[in-house]
Amino acid sequence: MAIQHTVVFRLVHEPGSHEESAFLATARDVLASIPGVEDFTVSRQISPKSDLVWQFSMSFADQSGYDAYNSHPGHVGFVESRWVPEVASFQEYDFVGLDGGC
Amino acid sequence: MAIQHTVVFRLVHEPGSHEESAFLATARDVLASIPGVEDFTVSRQISPKSDLVWQFSMSFADQSGYDAYNSHPGHVGFVESRWVPEVASFQEYDFVGLDGGC
Repeated sequence: MAIQHTVVFRLVHEPGSHEESAFLATARDVLASIPGVEDFTVSRQISPKSDLVWQFSMSFADQSGYDAYNSHPGHVGFVESRWVPEVASFQEYDFVGLDGGC
Repeated sequence: MAIQHTVVFRLVHEPGSHEESAFLATARDVLASIPGVEDFTVSRQISPKSDLVWQFSMSFADQSGYDAYNSHPGHVGFVESRWVPEVASFQEYDFVGLDGGC
């Protein structure tokens, strides 16, 4: 059962700043290379109905892949060293399609 | 610029109820057939970090397709007759990928 793991977030950095770009680039480098992570994407969230402006999305083939990601040192280290100090607000959602799709 | 329009929500109905199934089926029938709607999917939201338990996702080729959907009588009628009375809570997000993907 494939799982799409997503997080929508807002950084403490100024939009368009070097710090913003550096955070997104490091996240991609670190997280997308963790075994089991598929289809890692970075998107802008553009609806004015939310003040969260970025999204990371990735897919796992099954729950065991998701669990392995959560406990992987690359993920744990990224959360501690970058996510906690640089993210102002966020919301996680995990999706399982009823009918295929993303 | 393709836009992924999403809404995460919770119904007033009991999980597994006929009313829940009917809502999801009607939404698919009505919304997925509106011109410009692509890749309409229904997903379960399974993270315990949110109390919203369903997601609709659809894509539009550009902003004009999204605008046409919003003002289409099928969408307006569904919102008035089904969404407002049957949805307990929801959050919209719209995504534009930086690097392709869903």
